[in-house]
Amino acid sequence: MAPKAPKSPIPNLFFFLLLILSAFSAAAASGKLRSRRPCRRLVFYFHDILYNGENAANATAAIVGAPAWGNTTVLTGMNHFGDVVVFDDPITVDNNLHGPPVGRAQGFYIYDKKEIFTAWLGFSFVFNSTEHRGSLNFAGADPLMNKTRDVSVIGGTGDFFMARGIATLSTDSFEGEVYFRLRADIKLYECW
Amino acid sequence: MAPKAPKSPIPNLFFFLLLILSAFSAAAASGKLRSRRPCRRLVFYFHDILYNGENAANATAAIVGAPAWGNTTVLTGMNHFGDVVVFDDPITVDNNLHGPPVGRAQGFYIYDKKEIFTAWLGFSFVFNSTEHRGSLNFAGADPLMNKTRDVSVIGGTGDFFMARGIATLSTDSFEGEVYFRLRADIKLYECW
Amino acid sequence: MAPKAPKSPIPNLFFFLLLILSAFSAAAASGKLRSRRPCRRLVFYFHDILYNGENAANATAAIVGAPAWGNTTVLTGMNHFGDVVVFDDPITVDNNLHGPPVGRAQGFYIYDKKEIFTAWLGFSFVFNSTEHRGSLNFAGADPLMNKTRDVSVIGGTGDFFMARGIATLSTDSFEGEVYFRLRADIKLYECW
Repeated sequence: MAPKAPKSPIPNLFFFLLLILSAFSAAAASGKLRSRRPCRRLVFYFHDILYNGENAANATAAIVGAPAWGNTTVLTGMNHFGDVVVFDDPITVDNNLHGPPVGRAQGFYIYDKKEIFTAWLGFSFVFNSTEHRGSLNFAGADPLMNKTRDVSVIGGTGDFFMARGIATLSTDSFEGEVYFRLRADIKLYECW
Repeated sequence: MAPKAPKSPIPNLFFFLLLILSAFSAAAASGKLRSRRPCRRLVFYFHDILYNGENAANATAAIVGAPAWGNTTVLTGMNHFGDVVVFDDPITVDNNLHGPPVGRAQGFYIYDKKEIFTAWLGFSFVFNSTEHRGSLNFAGADPLMNKTRDVSVIGGTGDFFMARGIATLSTDSFEGEVYFRLRADIKLYECW
Repeated sequence: MAPKAPKSPIPNLFFFLLLILSAFSAAAASGKLRSRRPCRRLVFYFHDILYNGENAANATAAIVGAPAWGNTTVLTGMNHFGDVVVFDDPITVDNNLHGPPVGRAQGFYIYDKKEIFTAWLGFSFVFNSTEHRGSLNFAGADPLMNKTRDVSVIGGTGDFFMARGIATLSTDSFEGEVYFRLRADIKLYECW
């Protein structure tokens, strides 16, 4: 007599795996599997020298908009509220203004509060070095009196194709209202 | 004689599961599994009081750029085409200007069409309440004569780490060209 | 005697599949499965006619900010560094300025370098045609002397709900400093 076949475990296995798949698929759809550990991390410094009527030769930034009570040569009172500044700042890997630039930080900021210094930033890191080609694009609020503040990495191109993440900015140094050195600790959480 | 082993269903099962995996993996790669149901939804109001030369004390916004034929005190003709406005508006949970603010809406808009009122917006919600810390960053076209218009949530920080989504704006109320109350119905579809 | 049951392959299969699942899940979490093949591709042209003091009737763009040494009627020297331009340009499917517009390109650019023409862009394509409804939002550096340059698609609404990608811009044609025709080759890598 042929032996009695044991109850096959296959259907159970099958449904168990389907269950895993469903759970996984739901998790993926809701983003739960995304990691809070950066897939890429980079630290740079950028150096902003604001035109003040006397430093045309080495200024990297200029006021291009101001409220009715201000002008485009000198930063306005009331915590510069309303001043629009365009910049093209060198990016370096350490905190030395005269270090070899790896690219340019290009974009604008707008001082946007009467009671305290704070700004809104839209800018890009445009890399041009042996190590990095491409760009990272940033946007966000910059409450610049805070020791650190986070802005969003909203996209990237080239080596930073489709990147997303957070850049933690801190004011590494400043001299009066002319020179500002910012440290950008860039943490990418979406890398392609 | 040993009984004939039944044709094993395992290889079939195996390839069937591989098929599911492949399909799923393709779907994930193309984003098809993403849900159109928000993973988070928030409604806020923000209140814009535009400086008009007479309301310096309580204005929350100011014209900081204008075309050749305009100025920064009064909104320009031709549907304000070219006026750049910076703002720092209180955010409230209901439509009361004097309600407890949960944060500030900070950024800018630019009126960008001669024939009709429409603007381009770049701004952040900077939260500072017991319930929310962090920021949401927005960008997009604001055809403000439409009852509702959608802008993009392009990123977030803190409690809104890496958020993406859509904010549906509507003009909840306005008084002349000085006070505007906007309702923001924020729907996040990427939550980390 | 009952035949000896062959060693079941099921546990092996089971662990093999778990292995696949784990690998897949790790890959999904780190974004490795994302495809570098666009899920959607669109090509459009947009047409920028800059106001120069004499073409008010058909200008689609105007200078609205300028540095201390410039003005809002004529583009500034030093490669227009500091000029802020607002635009509302028709979008067409071919390179004909007078072709039927499918929408408007609306936003701003800021010339941001003294040594060469380069700009920072923040704008939207607002579609209004039988084929497309909704908007795409863009941001990024535009080194406009390069034959092609990539900016980020940072979001979308309507037909372009939650889109992300890259737009490769090229200057298709220009006339003096008044007319610029840009070609936008839009490649979306996140489609919902």
